[in-house]
Amino acid sequence: MCELLGMSANVPTDICFSFTGLVQRGGRTGPHKDGWGITFYEGKGCRTFKDPQPSIHSPIARLVQEYPIKSCSVIAHIRQANRGRVALENTHPFTRELWGRNWTYAHNGQLKGYRRLNSGSFRPIGETDSEQAFCWLLHKLAERYPRTPGNMEAVFRYIAELATELREKGVFNMLLSDGRYVMAFCSTNLFWITRRSPFGTAKLIDQDVEINFQEETTPDDVVTVIATQPLTGNETWQRIEPGHSVLFCLGERIV
Amino acid sequence: MCELLGMSANVPTDICFSFTGLVQRGGRTGPHKDGWGITFYEGKGCRTFKDPQPSIHSPIARLVQEYPIKSCSVIAHIRQANRGRVALENTHPFTRELWGRNWTYAHNGQLKGYRRLNSGSFRPIGETDSEQAFCWLLHKLAERYPRTPGNMEAVFRYIAELATELREKGVFNMLLSDGRYVMAFCSTNLFWITRRSPFGTAKLIDQDVEINFQEETTPDDVVTVIATQPLTGNETWQRIEPGHSVLFCLGERIV
Repeated sequence: MCELLGMSANVPTDICFSFTGLVQRGGRTGPHKDGWGITFYEGKGCRTFKDPQPSIHSPIARLVQEYPIKSCSVIAHIRQANRGRVALENTHPFTRELWGRNWTYAHNGQLKGYRRLNSGSFRPIGETDSEQAFCWLLHKLAERYPRTPGNMEAVFRYIAELATELREKGVFNMLLSDGRYVMAFCSTNLFWITRRSPFGTAKLIDQDVEINFQEETTPDDVVTVIATQPLTGNETWQRIEPGHSVLFCLGERIV
Repeated sequence: MCELLGMSANVPTDICFSFTGLVQRGGRTGPHKDGWGITFYEGKGCRTFKDPQPSIHSPIARLVQEYPIKSCSVIAHIRQANRGRVALENTHPFTRELWGRNWTYAHNGQLKGYRRLNSGSFRPIGETDSEQAFCWLLHKLAERYPRTPGNMEAVFRYIAELATELREKGVFNMLLSDGRYVMAFCSTNLFWITRRSPFGTAKLIDQDVEINFQEETTPDDVVTVIATQPLTGNETWQRIEPGHSVLFCLGERIV
């Protein structure tokens, strides 16, 4: 199993605090030692930092913790390998282009019978069930919408249907973003929290770090964080019901 | 105009020395202040570090200079914007999947009439002539070889034909890699050097840095570096004739 972390915000926001909590689970408070990755969107562009090393020992993870890259949409993942050996090509998140946008995906869980998923012209590069499922998803989307779709909420409803099909093959917790929207599909465990004014203080569960968001934000900021398990102990996280998905845009839940 | 840097090696080798020279041109010894990027292959996987900030001021560039990521194939680029504003989605290198492999591309030059290049299902995300040309190239390759081709040298001969067509639209210096092969197509300026035993000492032109490769290598290492302009002053770099390409695999020139 792996751990997922996502963010959706209405102003470019750094994720250093939450990422610091996640990194502890990559070899210290958690067993997720088989690599990690994080994708930051800036407009239509995105950049990914990833490492097949445990996040707790990675100089690149240290950079990401210390250098506040500001983004409105973030997807991160730390890995405990099940299908596919420890290698860069098997390290999430995965990004592919569709309709002239970068789509970024990370998966927590394990699927059976995934080799039979037809992914058309989206061919997997690594050996994971996760990437095969992502390629299948993109192939189904490209088939249903050969041209850029106008109604993105309908697209995400279709993605939820496809995710439900994948869940029938095992465990399929997923984060997916095109840079504007961040979707969370829950198969077993996925929590979220929206922080807005008046901001308070939050305290990480995995490390003795506290943050006063009031000092870091303006009154109009809306920031949602999604994670496999709550990252803070003194706030109330919402659980996504297994089999359901939640869609965020600019920090706000829209579906 | 921009500067290109590539590497092909028979053992995983770091590019810290050459990258240090390139970074100086990103805002100090050169005017290429509109972002930079570098892609390292590790097996079939690859990771890209990029920043729309000048390389000389980028904490991420500092990490890449100091943290020796070892790779057999590397593509790097620093940008002086002409077509497309300064933004992450316009920052090279660009990577796309074809035939289940990551293809990475960087371009130096400027093209006219590039909007008429039909790129099929490979849609550009940013606004550069470079990415449009890359998408067109991939589309032509996918059309000619709907299945994974067996003879890669023939594929690169076809790519050289396509690059010649692009050169008719302006200036088209290009580096391209699928992780195994590194191809350099010269439109105006591109130089390369192969270092092998007995290794000597090299001295950067752009900064007062010297390296004794003998201390860093084993006698079997073969490492080729490709750059827009020679990076060292005390070695003999080969010029690629305008209109010609050179293909490397595991450090050796094969075509």
